[in-house]
Amino acid sequence: MPSVIPVKLPQSSYEIAIAPGSLSELGSYLAKLNLGTKVLLVSNPEIFKLYKDVAVNSLQKAGFEVATHPIPEGEVNKTLASIEEIYNIALKNRLKRSSTMVALGGGVVGDMTGFAAATWFRGINFVQVPTSLLAMVDASIGGKTGVNHPQGKNLIGAFYQPRLVLIDPQVLKTLPVREFRAGMAEVIKYGVIWEPNLSSQPDLFRKLELAERLDDLAHLSEELLQTILTCSCEAKADVVSKDEKETDLRAILNYGHTIGHAIESLTKYSVVNHGEAVAIGMVAAGKIATKLQMWTEAEEKRQNKLIEKAKLLENAEFPIKIPELKSEIPPLNSEEVINQIIERDKKDFFILPTKIGEVKKVKIDENGVSEKIIREVLTELKISR
Amino acid sequence: MPSVIPVKLPQSSYEIAIAPGSLSELGSYLAKLNLGTKVLLVSNPEIFKLYKDVAVNSLQKAGFEVATHPIPEGEVNKTLASIEEIYNIALKNRLKRSSTMVALGGGVVGDMTGFAAATWFRGINFVQVPTSLLAMVDASIGGKTGVNHPQGKNLIGAFYQPRLVLIDPQVLKTLPVREFRAGMAEVIKYGVIWEPNLSSQPDLFRKLELAERLDDLAHLSEELLQTILTCSCEAKADVVSKDEKETDLRAILNYGHTIGHAIESLTKYSVVNHGEAVAIGMVAAGKIATKLQMWTEAEEKRQNKLIEKAKLLENAEFPIKIPELKSEIPPLNSEEVINQIIERDKKDFFILPTKIGEVKKVKIDENGVSEKIIREVLTELKISR
Repeated sequence: MPSVIPVKLPQSSYEIAIAPGSLSELGSYLAKLNLGTKVLLVSNPEIFKLYKDVAVNSLQKAGFEVATHPIPEGEVNKTLASIEEIYNIALKNRLKRSSTMVALGGGVVGDMTGFAAATWFRGINFVQVPTSLLAMVDASIGGKTGVNHPQGKNLIGAFYQPRLVLIDPQVLKTLPVREFRAGMAEVIKYGVIWEPNLSSQPDLFRKLELAERLDDLAHLSEELLQTILTCSCEAKADVVSKDEKETDLRAILNYGHTIGHAIESLTKYSVVNHGEAVAIGMVAAGKIATKLQMWTEAEEKRQNKLIEKAKLLENAEFPIKIPELKSEIPPLNSEEVINQIIERDKKDFFILPTKIGEVKKVKIDENGVSEKIIREVLTELKISR
Repeated sequence: MPSVIPVKLPQSSYEIAIAPGSLSELGSYLAKLNLGTKVLLVSNPEIFKLYKDVAVNSLQKAGFEVATHPIPEGEVNKTLASIEEIYNIALKNRLKRSSTMVALGGGVVGDMTGFAAATWFRGINFVQVPTSLLAMVDASIGGKTGVNHPQGKNLIGAFYQPRLVLIDPQVLKTLPVREFRAGMAEVIKYGVIWEPNLSSQPDLFRKLELAERLDDLAHLSEELLQTILTCSCEAKADVVSKDEKETDLRAILNYGHTIGHAIESLTKYSVVNHGEAVAIGMVAAGKIATKLQMWTEAEEKRQNKLIEKAKLLENAEFPIKIPELKSEIPPLNSEEVINQIIERDKKDFFILPTKIGEVKKVKIDENGVSEKIIREVLTELKISR
């Protein structure tokens, strides 16, 4: 049942281990890595309430000397000032170059702990123990670490690879349902952009189509969850190992993120969450691809059906509604969205599907994705007017 | 006459170019690297007074859009707060992932600019243009970047390699003589620890012995200076390319630094400069090696003669006096020095010479360098009592 996915990079290869119940085995997983004895376990107060004891006990049982540090929750605290607090704790607990920082939590905890580990003593050991679906299938893999600058997200950071990513699917039981669905958006994304090379691997998109429900962990079999996690991590690991520093191929992971990010940004990250934004972005990108006759309307519908099944959007037809939201997305202005994409986010391309399991990069210009098509799709979906 | 030294690393190879007058060619050197158009030139006010115009003009002539940022001089400003200022300037000038930060200055400017470049957008292009002898032969090569923590030097940082190190020996003309001599300490160090593999290369130690004077740039021929820079950079590049992240071999660069660093630290970095401390450290380490019969007294004397020739120390016999200092080093306590080395600096070894051009790592313990020997040497040299 447990899966182990190797991530092969020129300078630092590591493994993603996916195993139910593995949080209580954290210590023995770390013991295999030949690390120093000191561990600083970083999380937020909510997650510490649930999992601090099991993590600390397991580490101590394996002989590690453990210090813990809670960082306040949320993007608003993802700052250099919070990193300085981690440095102070590291100093107080006399961490050495051989010591390890462990991030137990979602993307924010992982990004910050990773950046602190990357920059303390010019880089100490770092281990990711993601607790949200989004962090498990996306943020914890690939070595992106960092914090926000007052004027922009993730402007400050480093590429820094963990020594291990340990995923315990059982911790998802305590994840709020809306966050579970948000993670499912990235899972569906992998289904659309990526097909495994090896025929022995399960076809993620097909598995998702066959699943009865995708909107709630309680209705997913342990087996399907394991498959979803394994395929998604394999997809991400495959892409990042071919393009660690995001010079080219890694761009395909941006599928759904171009319009998605513009919506998040224009609504000040307070209306839709990241997964919902990506879901809307995928619906929009899928429609653009159909208009450009890059894939078929039937394939577009298959994608959108998965997004509906995960209850990310009430329906993938216009107007897009998000079940969790009391209100609709505040009406956006098409020109603002286009300006956000091109001028502010400096995006000069879309990632668009050519079929289920394959995407390509298409320039934003008259020969590729024209501003006219973007405008059309935004208004047809009533994302903006 | 110009030398080009390749630094070969698994992920990022680059060149060290040593060429008289090359500062005025900075733009054309950068133009060959396929960088984006924006450059942020970072230095301190003193160096900007001397070299800002020539650097900026050269960059502009080559088509670069140049912004400049002066950071206040000295170790005391080597802080995360100063890095945040660089981030703000980067944002204000809309630097992109393809943009370049250029460090024009000594070690402090290089360390800080490098760390800002390493962590802005998870790493943008970085070029070193060292202006002190110490930075030319040591700090600018090897990818160590970072800032101080209020409680310790260089605790915060990253390994991040430059795209180019451009050395113009002519800028040394404006370097204060005491700083020139400090750099010469590291040059002598390379002579003691390293011999080129290729027989076609000049033997650095022998060249230094043959030089009439080493204490003042004005009395060095342009040819000897070029040889000194080339051999020193080759030595450093050879060592760091074999051990980028300082796991093993790179430790040999610490020759003279064990006792040297303890002295710097115990005198709060206000009595001797780094080069003088290293010179004292080499005299002490050389004496330890003689006592352990690792090399001969004759070889020890040859080393010390070079240190005297560079006027780093008034004489290498006891008591050690530094010509530049009005006062002697305040008397240190041997136990304090030993405690600083073992407990605070966590050093458990000495690098000791086995002959001119070769060193090895020797453990601090009864079978290697005993505390008794350290104590003896410290008191014999009247470094402490």
